[in-house]
Amino acid sequence: MTIEQLAYSVDTFYLLMSAALVMWMAAGFSMLEAGMVRSKNTTEILVKNVLLYSIAGIAYLVIGYRLMYGTPNVETYAQQADFFFQMVFVATAMSIVSGAVAERMKLNSFLLFCLVLTAVIYPVQGSWSWGGGFLSELGFVDFAGSGIVHMAGAAAALAGVLLLGPRQGKYAEDGTSRAIPGANMPLATLGTFILWMGWFGFNGGSQLQLSGTDNANAIALVFVNTNAAAASGAIGAFLLVRLKWQKADLTMILNGALAGLVAITAEPSAPTPLIACLIGLGAGVLVVGSILFLDRRGIDDPVGAISVRGVCGLYGLLLVAS
Amino acid sequence: MTIEQLAYSVDTFYLLMSAALVMWMAAGFSMLEAGMVRSKNTTEILVKNVLLYSIAGIAYLVIGYRLMYGTPNVETYAQQADFFFQMVFVATAMSIVSGAVAERMKLNSFLLFCLVLTAVIYPVQGSWSWGGGFLSELGFVDFAGSGIVHMAGAAAALAGVLLLGPRQGKYAEDGTSRAIPGANMPLATLGTFILWMGWFGFNGGSQLQLSGTDNANAIALVFVNTNAAAASGAIGAFLLVRLKWQKADLTMILNGALAGLVAITAEPSAPTPLIACLIGLGAGVLVVGSILFLDRRGIDDPVGAISVRGVCGLYGLLLVAS
Amino acid sequence: MTIEQLAYSVDTFYLLMSAALVMWMAAGFSMLEAGMVRSKNTTEILVKNVLLYSIAGIAYLVIGYRLMYGTPNVETYAQQADFFFQMVFVATAMSIVSGAVAERMKLNSFLLFCLVLTAVIYPVQGSWSWGGGFLSELGFVDFAGSGIVHMAGAAAALAGVLLLGPRQGKYAEDGTSRAIPGANMPLATLGTFILWMGWFGFNGGSQLQLSGTDNANAIALVFVNTNAAAASGAIGAFLLVRLKWQKADLTMILNGALAGLVAITAEPSAPTPLIACLIGLGAGVLVVGSILFLDRRGIDDPVGAISVRGVCGLYGLLLVAS
Repeated sequence: MTIEQLAYSVDTFYLLMSAALVMWMAAGFSMLEAGMVRSKNTTEILVKNVLLYSIAGIAYLVIGYRLMYGTPNVETYAQQADFFFQMVFVATAMSIVSGAVAERMKLNSFLLFCLVLTAVIYPVQGSWSWGGGFLSELGFVDFAGSGIVHMAGAAAALAGVLLLGPRQGKYAEDGTSRAIPGANMPLATLGTFILWMGWFGFNGGSQLQLSGTDNANAIALVFVNTNAAAASGAIGAFLLVRLKWQKADLTMILNGALAGLVAITAEPSAPTPLIACLIGLGAGVLVVGSILFLDRRGIDDPVGAISVRGVCGLYGLLLVAS
Repeated sequence: MTIEQLAYSVDTFYLLMSAALVMWMAAGFSMLEAGMVRSKNTTEILVKNVLLYSIAGIAYLVIGYRLMYGTPNVETYAQQADFFFQMVFVATAMSIVSGAVAERMKLNSFLLFCLVLTAVIYPVQGSWSWGGGFLSELGFVDFAGSGIVHMAGAAAALAGVLLLGPRQGKYAEDGTSRAIPGANMPLATLGTFILWMGWFGFNGGSQLQLSGTDNANAIALVFVNTNAAAASGAIGAFLLVRLKWQKADLTMILNGALAGLVAITAEPSAPTPLIACLIGLGAGVLVVGSILFLDRRGIDDPVGAISVRGVCGLYGLLLVAS
Repeated sequence: MTIEQLAYSVDTFYLLMSAALVMWMAAGFSMLEAGMVRSKNTTEILVKNVLLYSIAGIAYLVIGYRLMYGTPNVETYAQQADFFFQMVFVATAMSIVSGAVAERMKLNSFLLFCLVLTAVIYPVQGSWSWGGGFLSELGFVDFAGSGIVHMAGAAAALAGVLLLGPRQGKYAEDGTSRAIPGANMPLATLGTFILWMGWFGFNGGSQLQLSGTDNANAIALVFVNTNAAAASGAIGAFLLVRLKWQKADLTMILNGALAGLVAITAEPSAPTPLIACLIGLGAGVLVVGSILFLDRRGIDDPVGAISVRGVCGLYGLLLVAS
């Protein structure tokens, strides 16, 4: 065996393990969303989540992957590992939608939209940057997908939310918002931890190659920064709520952690860990403000998907651009 | 360090990570079964699942492994990694039984049966093929255990079910079956996702060696096919129920995904991903039919273990043979 | 690429995957504790667990790591991977405290204590041994942290418990202890399985290097022994309760598995798997006795953290010393 062949095996395995962690995020979104909706809608949100991951996998296999990358020519690791890693990403984008339109979108419409998003919309917009299209030529950088995955998904989700309107009973006649607390917070917390863990595959795998000391160092830094941003996001959201309203709000803490993860995703391999903490802290504060702001504007976002992934995805991209 | 020594390390790590994912399936079966039984029997099924994994580990260590493989002579990776990988497989076979006899088998009998199955029955039948016995000489191929693990476990489970009879109250006096819905569907869904993830270790690890481009390519294809079959299985089961009964049945969707996983396990490294989709689709349809058929025949299988793993394991083997 | 560079990459990846598994233990402790407290306190224990992991991450990044190791000079794998692996350990130590003081410690005090423990106390005592301090010079050996992580955390937890006293209603006026059963046993079981899985990273990663056949063999043995001790611990606790009180107690079975894990952590790479079984069996019996003993002495330990991790951590260390 040559050293190049062994490196090929190692890089393939690294990508497959990363992809398995991203696949695991499908469970994370399911538990997060199932925990945050009312218990009467639990089964519906579970059905949507299992089916969206399934449809995404098939649609991207049959149409999406080729649409996004043409006929990719991967040489230093297994071609199928590249496909698998890209495929699990599309599912995480669609997961945003299921959360945002929870408790009010018909199943058939949802599944149809899922098919269109994962077979066409996501691949086409992804081809503009990761596929080597005009955005990448303009110098647009999005390491692991703050924009391509999270903001794109959130834009689709926002369109859905505007179209569907808020859940029945969410707003009183005078427009006052009613809090609809999550039915199962252990489930939502589990979902957040699953996502936190899976994000190491999401960001860590986006280096795409492990062999070589530079790659290994970059991936290790990505792990540290990803964790630092999530931790700081949770603390930021906690502190803001604690100082302003004198209470500990678990939902906001979880959203803070996720906000930190989304924000660091635009470029997790460049900042020092201390800068990553600041990025996360900002995201944690931002997400609380964004959720309250949208809620007051009549945008009903049951699990905070638009704030966490749209607003904080944009915030991450702006930090990289600046 | 030589390249052979590094490959030895890499192959060992690959097998250990795969085995850890298969170990994780013990949690998957626990959650699946705990979610699908009635809440009054939750604790009992949890006790059985933790103990069966524990007993399997010790019984296979003390007796089973040697019975199945004699004194294996592993040279290209750590001997103990081989043992660990084989050991977690026996636990997944016994998990079928706990599901099938749920809510009516006495704990002592169950534990005794667990001891006999994992120390003797599984190793002896496994030695016929994977141990180099007469089945392997006859040309029998079972890549990751559709038959050796899943069908064998399901056969034992079927024997138990016939012996014990249905759960009290499952069938009315005139023989009509009463639906006993699962008490906790988020838990059952989580269990399915855990199994889906763990199956990458189950099938991906069964290549047994990562080093070398051929091995790496094979493993990557196994990952893709495993996922494609599971996704198609879920969609197949969903579509059949949707078209025939105009409803979305989460339990059947979950069983469809698992059926796809079992079916592809007989040979996940040969078909193209599109063929894997067809195999999964067939399994998803088959499992719905099988569950309804067995139920009408008075075979009470609370979590669908016999249909998912017996019938679809056989289906997978027949596809390979043909 | 040279073989040293590839080994560097492989060792870095091995450490990062191990650390991700240890990070996953944060979810395990959350679920275990959320399942074992009364349902009215679920949210509070979840808040504490998410925040303790977050605070530990930041405090160890800013202060703790340097306090414990000075300016470490890691050469054969990425420096950041070493930091990440060490960081997740400190969080597992603090997790003991959250369990022990559950349902009665104020959030502010808890968070302040968490900050002090993870920034100062843990790093200082850890520097005595793993940091090359006086304990290591005296020949003290603690492979993966039976003492440094688990016993140290349990000592802090015991101090907290003595200070806070038992939960209201735990003891009747005449001193009789009242059983307060866990509210959600599937969650507690899930937490235990998560910990069991994560422990492969905890112990397996503590070898610190994968490359080289000796390292690979040692890590494989560590996986096997870790699993054997956990399985035997569960069986030991089960058998004792079954024989003495004629019942199957799920809580004790789970504690038995965790006790086996803690006990083997002092030296998982030396004993044969059969010896590891005996160590685990002893821990399973010991933890049942310890929980009952402490309960009778008025030490209210809601999730058994002091017995599982303090007493069995000490037991593991004594076995190594003898």
